[in-house]
Amino acid sequence: MASVQMSPKDEMVERFLDAAARGDVAKVSTMIVHSSSLINESGDNGWTALMLGARNGHFEVVKTLLSKGCDKSLVNKSGETSYDIAKFWGYKHIAGLLANSKSGNSHHLLPGSGTEEHENYFSREFLNRMSEKRTDSRWLEALQSSLATIYILFFNLNPLVTSGSDEMGDSKPGYKLCRLGWGSVKELLTKPGTTLIFLGVEKQVKLNSPSPAKDEDRLTAWFALNTEDNPLEDPKLQNPSSFFLKPPMPGILKLNSDDAGVIAQARSVLAWHNRYSFCPTCGSRTKVEEGGYKRTCLNEECRSLQGIHNTCYPRVDPVVIMLVIHPDGNQCLLGRKKVFPAGMFSCLAGFIEPGEAIEDAVRREVEEESGVKVGPVQYVSSQPWPMPSSLMIGCLAVAVSTDIKVDENEIEEARWFTRQQVLDVLVKNSKPAFIMPPRQAIAHQLIKYWIGVNANL
Amino acid sequence: MASVQMSPKDEMVERFLDAAARGDVAKVSTMIVHSSSLINESGDNGWTALMLGARNGHFEVVKTLLSKGCDKSLVNKSGETSYDIAKFWGYKHIAGLLANSKSGNSHHLLPGSGTEEHENYFSREFLNRMSEKRTDSRWLEALQSSLATIYILFFNLNPLVTSGSDEMGDSKPGYKLCRLGWGSVKELLTKPGTTLIFLGVEKQVKLNSPSPAKDEDRLTAWFALNTEDNPLEDPKLQNPSSFFLKPPMPGILKLNSDDAGVIAQARSVLAWHNRYSFCPTCGSRTKVEEGGYKRTCLNEECRSLQGIHNTCYPRVDPVVIMLVIHPDGNQCLLGRKKVFPAGMFSCLAGFIEPGEAIEDAVRREVEEESGVKVGPVQYVSSQPWPMPSSLMIGCLAVAVSTDIKVDENEIEEARWFTRQQVLDVLVKNSKPAFIMPPRQAIAHQLIKYWIGVNANL
Ligand SMILES: [Zn+2]
Ligand SMILES: [Zn+2]
Repeated sequence: MASVQMSPKDEMVERFLDAAARGDVAKVSTMIVHSSSLINESGDNGWTALMLGARNGHFEVVKTLLSKGCDKSLVNKSGETSYDIAKFWGYKHIAGLLANSKSGNSHHLLPGSGTEEHENYFSREFLNRMSEKRTDSRWLEALQSSLATIYILFFNLNPLVTSGSDEMGDSKPGYKLCRLGWGSVKELLTKPGTTLIFLGVEKQVKLNSPSPAKDEDRLTAWFALNTEDNPLEDPKLQNPSSFFLKPPMPGILKLNSDDAGVIAQARSVLAWHNRYSFCPTCGSRTKVEEGGYKRTCLNEECRSLQGIHNTCYPRVDPVVIMLVIHPDGNQCLLGRKKVFPAGMFSCLAGFIEPGEAIEDAVRREVEEESGVKVGPVQYVSSQPWPMPSSLMIGCLAVAVSTDIKVDENEIEEARWFTRQQVLDVLVKNSKPAFIMPPRQAIAHQLIKYWIGVNANL
Repeated sequence: MASVQMSPKDEMVERFLDAAARGDVAKVSTMIVHSSSLINESGDNGWTALMLGARNGHFEVVKTLLSKGCDKSLVNKSGETSYDIAKFWGYKHIAGLLANSKSGNSHHLLPGSGTEEHENYFSREFLNRMSEKRTDSRWLEALQSSLATIYILFFNLNPLVTSGSDEMGDSKPGYKLCRLGWGSVKELLTKPGTTLIFLGVEKQVKLNSPSPAKDEDRLTAWFALNTEDNPLEDPKLQNPSSFFLKPPMPGILKLNSDDAGVIAQARSVLAWHNRYSFCPTCGSRTKVEEGGYKRTCLNEECRSLQGIHNTCYPRVDPVVIMLVIHPDGNQCLLGRKKVFPAGMFSCLAGFIEPGEAIEDAVRREVEEESGVKVGPVQYVSSQPWPMPSSLMIGCLAVAVSTDIKVDENEIEEARWFTRQQVLDVLVKNSKPAFIMPPRQAIAHQLIKYWIGVNANL
């Protein structure tokens, strides 16, 4: 005979889940302190405290559970993570919190500070690149004409978008990448000057689709196209609400996170094709292979065909971008280029040179641009930047000298700003001392990171 | 009347400096605990405790002072740093310690773990690149024929070396880059297929040279040359003790730190010239500019001449290399490629793709190569790798799954090794479970870092 009485443990789990569902942060915290094993427990249908907090929009509960090392990768019996739940119920700030903290509870195995990984704009991994499939041309060809397959379109590297609401929480309207089907693009593909690349498949497999004949039919594949002639001259593609973002900046910063991640990959690779049509080793023409991730020289005698050479693969340019902190700990160094909007100051930055480590590139660039000498350097986070294909490596650095002498070829002005001045800008006080770069830029995030960290000291 | 009596403070400083000079680590430590302001005090002629420890070869004293946040950038009244002193008196392990810990005492301003920056092989910045001078062709030309100028020579990217003792402390003999003068190379420069690049000037200016006429005469500039014909056919260059390292690996790993830093820069840039002679945008020939840091298309109609394009600048390929830690914290994941020497296992690694952040590249590569899923990722250090021009970005990562399924196109085998197995290899116990990559590889340093860090927990 089954007991109707709950065990003491089950009862405690139920009280814990109930507190999370009601948003009772104090009780959630206290119970974890007394019984840390509660944190990942689940009740009916596999719902954990994190899921219940996310379901009911309790931001502080979610934050508390994450900070205590809660495993956010768990799924309920419907296969949903806490992130899925928060997104579905429209709690975008909670979904953002869950998306940005990529870790489970295994941070304690790392010797570093244990700060959460920060997801910058352009960094969302919405697609699985499936690079092992790039050489499987039969598989790629079958996917191309699949009804589920999505095409995004560029004309001279300018993306086709529609106006759409910005999911990032801003009040300003944003853009959305136009998603086209095979029928709309198949003629474009035959035109000279059109480049096609395979981006990957959506990570979230559609489990609910009626039992498909082939496994591939469950996948939603993405491809990107770049054309040299305006494709909107084709009536099939004309649509009053869609247009090319020309130039891509700054409009490209107003996509939702998923679209921003897709465009970072697509535009970088297409920009490489756009500038690297000829073999740099012998000057011959080349052909596109491996789903758009390789160009092979058509000259059979070419040295580039012997062994593996980077001439055949897309280029990624590593850049250091750094917030330099004054030796007094209370000021930071920002500079402005002539091309910046009036009043804007940002972090210093520059390309890493051949034969240079990240920290040495930081020290060299800061001294070259501003005359300030730098001691310790600390990596914070990175960001792909598809203009055309940079990898921004974001660091904090501590100055060991303070006199500024700018290289006028590089920047117009550099200045020490106090923490209070930066705070005034961040909280949008009146009469700000300068204008920040937009939040989509890693420079903005580095500045915020410094302010946030120091505020807690 | 001046007092002959010392003040109590002066007396304490003198006892502190005396303890450092005698190598009394215990006393040095105790005195800092009681009076932390002692650490950067100096006595006669501006000598600090760090300088005295370095002068008398007391490794533990230097290490202790550095770990307590001692400022190693201070100079005595002769303008010497502790590093200069250690080097002059032949204490290379102490000089190495002082060179590797690049920081002063400003680490506390950074939110991270505060671990000392690690200098990997190929990362020593022996030269100041003086990139602002690359466009000053008159200045560069004058330097070229200066008697102080040093040329290093490559034949098809293989460096010219002599056998020399290894300054890194190994007992095995190493190599030294051959340093040539203007007289030896000026004819080579006129030959077709020869590429000349400017590397920079030695950071240490020769202050003791008798008052020179021009400022440039005090500089020791370095250039590098690559030739397509064997330059040793020229009798002027023949020397029984010098030869080309062909292939460069693994001999290139047996240089002293300064030479390794120089070759990292020189070989990366020369390898770019070697494979990128033609304009990738239009296939035309190009000319070398800016001291070897730019190639400009000779076709006046070329799009690459409008605006700034990466086609004209040397390429650096960012690579992630990571030590994956088992969720139990006690094992790490190592793999081997078919081309490795028998028994060798190393960290997994792979190129960062366009549109990808560092942490996401780590997760993708590990899952692709080994089937293991990764959660948190932490940057540790970076290393330029001039084969031909990679930037290795070294990380620790924590696995969230443990089943291994290798991609046989990428690696032959991957395995979890316990910490004890790794320790046995590091301390050279008999019957090691595997062979480590050499200490010059960042993979070796990442493994050592993990072991060292966990040993302290
Ligand atoms: Zn070719
Ligand atoms: Zn051209």
